[in-house]
Amino acid sequence: MTTPVTPVVAVAYHSGYGHTAVLAEAVRDGAAAAGATVHLVDVEKITDEQWALLDASDAIVFGSPTYMGTASAAFHAFAEASSKRWFSAAWKDKLAAGFTNSASKSGDKLHTLQFFTVLAAQHGMHWVSLGLHPGWNASTASENDLNRLGIFLGAGAQSNSDEGPDAVHKADIATAEHLGRRIADTARTFVAGKAA
Amino acid sequence: MTTPVTPVVAVAYHSGYGHTAVLAEAVRDGAAAAGATVHLVDVEKITDEQWALLDASDAIVFGSPTYMGTASAAFHAFAEASSKRWFSAAWKDKLAAGFTNSASKSGDKLHTLQFFTVLAAQHGMHWVSLGLHPGWNASTASENDLNRLGIFLGAGAQSNSDEGPDAVHKADIATAEHLGRRIADTARTFVAGKAA
Amino acid sequence: MTTPVTPVVAVAYHSGYGHTAVLAEAVRDGAAAAGATVHLVDVEKITDEQWALLDASDAIVFGSPTYMGTASAAFHAFAEASSKRWFSAAWKDKLAAGFTNSASKSGDKLHTLQFFTVLAAQHGMHWVSLGLHPGWNASTASENDLNRLGIFLGAGAQSNSDEGPDAVHKADIATAEHLGRRIADTARTFVAGKAA
Amino acid sequence: MTTPVTPVVAVAYHSGYGHTAVLAEAVRDGAAAAGATVHLVDVEKITDEQWALLDASDAIVFGSPTYMGTASAAFHAFAEASSKRWFSAAWKDKLAAGFTNSASKSGDKLHTLQFFTVLAAQHGMHWVSLGLHPGWNASTASENDLNRLGIFLGAGAQSNSDEGPDAVHKADIATAEHLGRRIADTARTFVAGKAA
Repeated sequence: MTTPVTPVVAVAYHSGYGHTAVLAEAVRDGAAAAGATVHLVDVEKITDEQWALLDASDAIVFGSPTYMGTASAAFHAFAEASSKRWFSAAWKDKLAAGFTNSASKSGDKLHTLQFFTVLAAQHGMHWVSLGLHPGWNASTASENDLNRLGIFLGAGAQSNSDEGPDAVHKADIATAEHLGRRIADTARTFVAGKAA
Repeated sequence: MTTPVTPVVAVAYHSGYGHTAVLAEAVRDGAAAAGATVHLVDVEKITDEQWALLDASDAIVFGSPTYMGTASAAFHAFAEASSKRWFSAAWKDKLAAGFTNSASKSGDKLHTLQFFTVLAAQHGMHWVSLGLHPGWNASTASENDLNRLGIFLGAGAQSNSDEGPDAVHKADIATAEHLGRRIADTARTFVAGKAA
Repeated sequence: MTTPVTPVVAVAYHSGYGHTAVLAEAVRDGAAAAGATVHLVDVEKITDEQWALLDASDAIVFGSPTYMGTASAAFHAFAEASSKRWFSAAWKDKLAAGFTNSASKSGDKLHTLQFFTVLAAQHGMHWVSLGLHPGWNASTASENDLNRLGIFLGAGAQSNSDEGPDAVHKADIATAEHLGRRIADTARTFVAGKAA
Repeated sequence: MTTPVTPVVAVAYHSGYGHTAVLAEAVRDGAAAAGATVHLVDVEKITDEQWALLDASDAIVFGSPTYMGTASAAFHAFAEASSKRWFSAAWKDKLAAGFTNSASKSGDKLHTLQFFTVLAAQHGMHWVSLGLHPGWNASTASENDLNRLGIFLGAGAQSNSDEGPDAVHKADIATAEHLGRRIADTARTFVAGKAA
């Protein structure tokens, strides 16, 4: 009989106006519901202690709004600062995943997720996809379906820029929760496999 | 007094089930309305005469559905066959633009457009962007706005996969027409500039 | 005591002139040396039996030359045909990785690897990065170092187009072997974790 | 008889250790040699006057090192700040181009250039490609050829991280000068065309 594994998941995010923070909390809730220990880290205010939490995590989920076609400048400052971890290969073989929010349905969100995959690969991390078929096979598909936007590398959300964080779409929140569960479950499998 | 310039625009597209063909025709109509001579070329059945039409055009607009995250295999066969033009730099300094359709709002359409930009750059072509702000600044934005999906590299459309070409969204058709006018106008400027 | 796990790795590749086939064989050799059962599948000639081998694998490694900025048309035909697996989610939660060859040092190889990551994500697969620091920290770095080109999403090779497959760079072959070992080891961990 | 056109080209760059600055100066020199008025703007220290210079330019060339797979954080701060221009469409229909430097041959430089193309498209700018065949058709190709790395969207350079700016590769400097000439010539054509 093996001891149950508790994976450790960090959510490293930046939020400009609060919409992305709602998604970060949804990822956290999904991962926690799946039994993970979760650290929620606002990268704009990251402390040495929080860097250490990232270093000790089994998986890091990157989150940022999409501004001008890529992650926010605050997220990019964090990514550049992670080069210290790159030199020591501190994040090698960890899992990674990502999510992003923008004001339009498509809105170059894919480019932000592509950046996250490249950042993860630079660190030697493995990328966990969203793993959700979009609800678009039929004209009866609903805006309330999970992955309503049809994104695959990670979780995407569309929020009107003139509405506050409380207006983040319920389906997008549920999609982010799904990503949290998925990264926790995948991390559990991975950690258990290393111990086997 | 300068002689009016009539730019020549080719639309090189593939359509799997007819939706992308509707967009190709909209690009053609927009370019023609802006005074261009337009050649509509289905790349799956391209003839030597049509290759010659592309070679003689001032601008080539690439169009394809997005399947499995990129352009269709039929479009890729055309792109690979264009390597003959690559070796002779036959398309160097022409203008390029692009459009794509998929069944979901986002659906990795950006990746197809990124491929078009890379293909164009390999040929030494200049890339003409969509040049449309999306109608998303307010929660009052409508699904009927031009560029309703918020894409910038080119024109994107979302069509339900269980509905036929006659159900292509009116706003997406109008966005493709806009792209046709824009490439024609930009090509006219460019051709006039070379003659100046 | 747990039974040792033998992961199953498939290498799904296309090679135009034989260079990429050399890399595919190196990935196979690396994975086999790490204890995996390996299936080498030329996607241009793929049979129903080989599709079934892919379906039964723990990991699929995609390989293709980079032509005109993306994978070859033959690989794209395979990727489009994989949509049958997409509809049934047959490859969900498998591991994926990739490699590519082109005639120049950079040569848009990254775009081919990005396509592989998007294709994998569409299938709900997890992406295994190369996990190799490039040998470039110093001016004393050598062309004989692993990952001499400095690519992170997967393994890249540069082969002169006027030289045959026997001239594929030794360091690029060794890098592909590394990728084979890495995907086998990661798949073993993953499979063991699912069984734990 | 038409009055000769003097295009205005801005080079908006960030350099971490001086290597990218050498490329920026090469782009400037190439553009000036082709008859353009050129503004060299270090985006980390950009002033209101320099923002106004960008606004008044016919073309803007983006330049940055590639750090952790994308442009530097300082460049990203500039890109995010350009959203003020996005809202007013101040850069719409200008020309854009780009260059980047990293310590490895490939090193995810393509991703930085892809970001520049997406940023340009968000602004409604047209992207001018490098327009240079790489010197790789034969095994006799030289490291001294223009575009020795085989990049197409823009100009790329590889500089050893333990050597200073005076060690930037001569072929990479010449490639950047080529890009400067090309953007100046293309801008001249474009401006003359608008006046025609």
